[in-house]
Amino acid sequence: MSASQFGSRFVITSFGESHGTALGVVIDGCPAGVRFDSEILKKELERRRPGHHGSGQIVSGRQEADAPEVLSGVFEEKTLGTPIAIIVRNQDARSQDYKEIKNSPRAGHADDMWRNKFGHSDHRGGGRSSGRETVSRVMAGAVAQMLLKETSPKTRVMGYASQIGPFSLTPDERVQVPSKNIDSFQARFPSNRDVEVAELLKSAQESGDSYGGVAEILIENPPAYLGQPVFHKLKSDLAQAFLSVGATNGFELGLGFESAEVKGTEFHQGTQEAYGGIRGGISTGESILLKVSFKPTSSILDVAKKGRHDPCIVTRAIPVLEAMTWLVLADHWLWSKTDRI
Amino acid sequence: MSASQFGSRFVITSFGESHGTALGVVIDGCPAGVRFDSEILKKELERRRPGHHGSGQIVSGRQEADAPEVLSGVFEEKTLGTPIAIIVRNQDARSQDYKEIKNSPRAGHADDMWRNKFGHSDHRGGGRSSGRETVSRVMAGAVAQMLLKETSPKTRVMGYASQIGPFSLTPDERVQVPSKNIDSFQARFPSNRDVEVAELLKSAQESGDSYGGVAEILIENPPAYLGQPVFHKLKSDLAQAFLSVGATNGFELGLGFESAEVKGTEFHQGTQEAYGGIRGGISTGESILLKVSFKPTSSILDVAKKGRHDPCIVTRAIPVLEAMTWLVLADHWLWSKTDRI
Amino acid sequence: MSASQFGSRFVITSFGESHGTALGVVIDGCPAGVRFDSEILKKELERRRPGHHGSGQIVSGRQEADAPEVLSGVFEEKTLGTPIAIIVRNQDARSQDYKEIKNSPRAGHADDMWRNKFGHSDHRGGGRSSGRETVSRVMAGAVAQMLLKETSPKTRVMGYASQIGPFSLTPDERVQVPSKNIDSFQARFPSNRDVEVAELLKSAQESGDSYGGVAEILIENPPAYLGQPVFHKLKSDLAQAFLSVGATNGFELGLGFESAEVKGTEFHQGTQEAYGGIRGGISTGESILLKVSFKPTSSILDVAKKGRHDPCIVTRAIPVLEAMTWLVLADHWLWSKTDRI
Amino acid sequence: MSASQFGSRFVITSFGESHGTALGVVIDGCPAGVRFDSEILKKELERRRPGHHGSGQIVSGRQEADAPEVLSGVFEEKTLGTPIAIIVRNQDARSQDYKEIKNSPRAGHADDMWRNKFGHSDHRGGGRSSGRETVSRVMAGAVAQMLLKETSPKTRVMGYASQIGPFSLTPDERVQVPSKNIDSFQARFPSNRDVEVAELLKSAQESGDSYGGVAEILIENPPAYLGQPVFHKLKSDLAQAFLSVGATNGFELGLGFESAEVKGTEFHQGTQEAYGGIRGGISTGESILLKVSFKPTSSILDVAKKGRHDPCIVTRAIPVLEAMTWLVLADHWLWSKTDRI
Repeated sequence: MSASQFGSRFVITSFGESHGTALGVVIDGCPAGVRFDSEILKKELERRRPGHHGSGQIVSGRQEADAPEVLSGVFEEKTLGTPIAIIVRNQDARSQDYKEIKNSPRAGHADDMWRNKFGHSDHRGGGRSSGRETVSRVMAGAVAQMLLKETSPKTRVMGYASQIGPFSLTPDERVQVPSKNIDSFQARFPSNRDVEVAELLKSAQESGDSYGGVAEILIENPPAYLGQPVFHKLKSDLAQAFLSVGATNGFELGLGFESAEVKGTEFHQGTQEAYGGIRGGISTGESILLKVSFKPTSSILDVAKKGRHDPCIVTRAIPVLEAMTWLVLADHWLWSKTDRI
Repeated sequence: MSASQFGSRFVITSFGESHGTALGVVIDGCPAGVRFDSEILKKELERRRPGHHGSGQIVSGRQEADAPEVLSGVFEEKTLGTPIAIIVRNQDARSQDYKEIKNSPRAGHADDMWRNKFGHSDHRGGGRSSGRETVSRVMAGAVAQMLLKETSPKTRVMGYASQIGPFSLTPDERVQVPSKNIDSFQARFPSNRDVEVAELLKSAQESGDSYGGVAEILIENPPAYLGQPVFHKLKSDLAQAFLSVGATNGFELGLGFESAEVKGTEFHQGTQEAYGGIRGGISTGESILLKVSFKPTSSILDVAKKGRHDPCIVTRAIPVLEAMTWLVLADHWLWSKTDRI
Repeated sequence: MSASQFGSRFVITSFGESHGTALGVVIDGCPAGVRFDSEILKKELERRRPGHHGSGQIVSGRQEADAPEVLSGVFEEKTLGTPIAIIVRNQDARSQDYKEIKNSPRAGHADDMWRNKFGHSDHRGGGRSSGRETVSRVMAGAVAQMLLKETSPKTRVMGYASQIGPFSLTPDERVQVPSKNIDSFQARFPSNRDVEVAELLKSAQESGDSYGGVAEILIENPPAYLGQPVFHKLKSDLAQAFLSVGATNGFELGLGFESAEVKGTEFHQGTQEAYGGIRGGISTGESILLKVSFKPTSSILDVAKKGRHDPCIVTRAIPVLEAMTWLVLADHWLWSKTDRI
Repeated sequence: MSASQFGSRFVITSFGESHGTALGVVIDGCPAGVRFDSEILKKELERRRPGHHGSGQIVSGRQEADAPEVLSGVFEEKTLGTPIAIIVRNQDARSQDYKEIKNSPRAGHADDMWRNKFGHSDHRGGGRSSGRETVSRVMAGAVAQMLLKETSPKTRVMGYASQIGPFSLTPDERVQVPSKNIDSFQARFPSNRDVEVAELLKSAQESGDSYGGVAEILIENPPAYLGQPVFHKLKSDLAQAFLSVGATNGFELGLGFESAEVKGTEFHQGTQEAYGGIRGGISTGESILLKVSFKPTSSILDVAKKGRHDPCIVTRAIPVLEAMTWLVLADHWLWSKTDRI
């Protein structure tokens, strides 16, 4: 297992610096015969781009065309069973903005940690600690999605912001989430208070401030019996997947921390919501509900204002979390093929 | 990477069913020359045993001598650089108690999931989905601890319950945690309300009820610069490690979910506590604070009352979480040896 | 991938020193539902024991009962899908014989290499560099064989000595190999010159000399389409498997080195024998023929004469090579389950 | 471990079809701070190109510029400790030549095996079973070489043909190998009979025939104590590495199969040549001598004559075998850093 590698069966290797030549991913382990739907790939990359899911523009202004190029593993629109390599070239790399960062690392940012660890770093735009690295994850996740679309067509992965700074979804709003078009909300916060949230973020961006938040991932109709005891329970691989995303600092399955206060007799007579669709580390086939918390973005000091950063990372992180979810599902779906003879 | 394997450099493979012949672990990747301190091994196994850390008896009544036997990898009290295998035999396997479970799986329990997944399961006491599997983790964690004791002698891993059902540590109690002898508290809840907590749990046990809770792990003086970008950040490997423990359903680093409500300007001027000692996925060398939530124990129905289970799993899980922490630290300490030439 | 681990799907971890407490293996990745036939396990261990396959006694005199104990992963004579741990205790550990070796390493032997590498070694009987480590392989191979027996019942793995020192099988003897009971020949050399070979070895043992040799593995009716391009071709994993056995120094598939002299037009109009049943790294379903060469045993000097060693390792290595073959087949059989959707 | 991945510490993932968009490799695990010498990369790719090491033209006529593009992991001419991705675009992909192969697979070739295994294949030029895949290996090997150049500057890897069809090096020629400029010989056969060999091959090419051969790899001044017992001995990882190259069917360390005929007393009083520089699976620091046999090229039938193939693959395979050697050395050099505390 190497550092930029994820998965045990559907194995991806991510590469690329924020301001280097290109970002990319190699997927090794995708079976042959999967229909390769380029539209899914393009759509997911588009959804990851700043300000392109809704009408607003409350996120970092970096604009990359992000046109994916499939280098291998696909022929006549089907996967070959060989490694699938996909890259995106960096075009809009305003490294000028970041030059002065070289000697003045951003507070709370990964830059200085990486420099000390490796003794040498690409200081331009955070190098590989930049959020731009997630392009690779989104591309790999799109392929994982293609695999699941064929093998478990009813499975749906839906991410949304349930909290952005002081704003949280109300119980009523929550109930309606599955019927909403999340991307039609500027901050992917499915509420009619979405405009207020957008204004808060705009004002934070102007004043050099930022907010944390919470994203939720709802998996509807997941395949049942995914998860490998004991160290690759579905919940533990999902936790690793989500916590590998920058700025995350919390993970919950179902009730999560709230369950500490609930008596067992109440918890277990409760519905699937309490345990979140995973029991004994294995998917039951019921909906899986996951929550991920994000700290406020760190690029808030003077030097970085010129950098193009988000006042709240949650909105943009949602396609990334969805991608990580598809990857874990694809990995475990393949793994489950050898559970028994 | 196989299902019962954890770690990339300090690689452990856990094995054993709750009511099988033995539980054990093989550690492959521990360097040669580490002093093998059997006292650490025995002490940690003792700390994992029910009712043996304090004076009380508020946990499951199973009593195993849990005498570890080192089968390989150690010679003249030093590690050989070869695989270290350690086993513990099951002596007190009252499988009679569990016989009727065969056809009536416990609600919310892993038993029935495993049976459906694998088509065949060891129904006695949960087989490998039992908490008894954690014996293997504790033994491996003890060896990881031995490695760190020599290479990073100031590092200390300290686990405690910060919430048990309705009881939470007060801010004052929290501050005093590092100076407390956690094991002297019946429920490892370092508060003078410990007796009340113990009574609550006793009463829950009698009435067939249970509580969830929250455990915290404080790592003092961790080695700096541990963690491998991007999929093996220290936080992501810790999250995987903790969520692989049964009954867990939440993980937080530093402020965690609370940080969603904090403005960036406040968060980042804050101390190490906010971000929890890990930045960019890499340890800073400052204390690391982690939280893990547990759902209420599931064995609350009639059939299982005869089984010997805990009204709250948090207390017993603490040595297990500590072991997983040592394992992640040892793994990443070894990994960091090749960060640069 | 750790040092004592083999396989990508059917993953084994071997442990144990020659004169330590026990040797063992953990198999992680064996599917649930495989009938666990203890007789296969016992028989293969018996076949590995010195002097127990035929009537003679031309091998090292160490006598271990080698009673395997299954610690986990099997219930009601079926595999559980959980790790299968099997151990054998060391009873007859005449470490006295080896004491003087501590300061006088055996020429050409691994002892001194390991000591220098690890800075610390178990000098008794070669520690883990001893041939006794192969007990673990034979046990794991027996389980792999059980898996194949159910999923590919016609597959047969047959090992024999084709050369021992100056003696080689004649073309006629070769043709008759598949119909022979190999274990009925003292040196597993299927020829009526077997007695002469045995005498040669006996005399070599007395004079402190030794011989090399060649073992062949014939796989009849292997599953077709095993092998993963490009680094886990069936031939490359077999080569790794065989070269991981002590004293080996050569590997051939089909014609091997001889094919250097054959014109392409002749080679390819030839039968399966030329390419050995593997094309493009993938099994065709036809018989696979493999050869492994062994250097003369190294323990020939005075100090080691007291140690109990074989004048030719080939005979005893055959069950070990067969075990490695079953392991590779099981690993790739599982792997092939996800070649396509 | 995935199918197109090699190495445990210096981990490479190869990708790309012969007639697809590009070939490439990602190296994950190379430490930070290694000077990235583009000249080594270019030179090794050049050496791999047909007919470019000497003056002759006795190999397949495919002409690719093979200009490598480094996409990530390198900054200011030093490695960053992050994944290094390098690609080469396919320009000269005469897939027209191969169209008719779609329905008439080449005898003895991997094409039809892959098609049956995966149910779908890129029939153009062998897809990924083509020798062109080795571009990825050569690029990765160049980076491994850069790592060793800094950490073990005296280490030298030298490949040459020791046999091509009926021609073998004489003992005298063998002794002089280390002083020769191998690439100055048309067929990398370091003998004054090189011209005769070239003529034989030219005539074979014209008549649609081919020859097998033997390549040797001599490692001078390797780092000592590389190799991980028991399944990752240096010899077993080298065997896997070499046998993963197309058309190989044999491997020898030192005397190899010849040692079967040598008495132990002679073998062990012999020099390093007998055992080949590896003992107990671990490098001694002395020169390592390895041999690899190749079957005659398979593309000899009518349909493939139009394809551009070599009458003997050995000459071109030499830079590939050297690359695999550097990869194994880099992998094990990194691995050895954690042998002891």
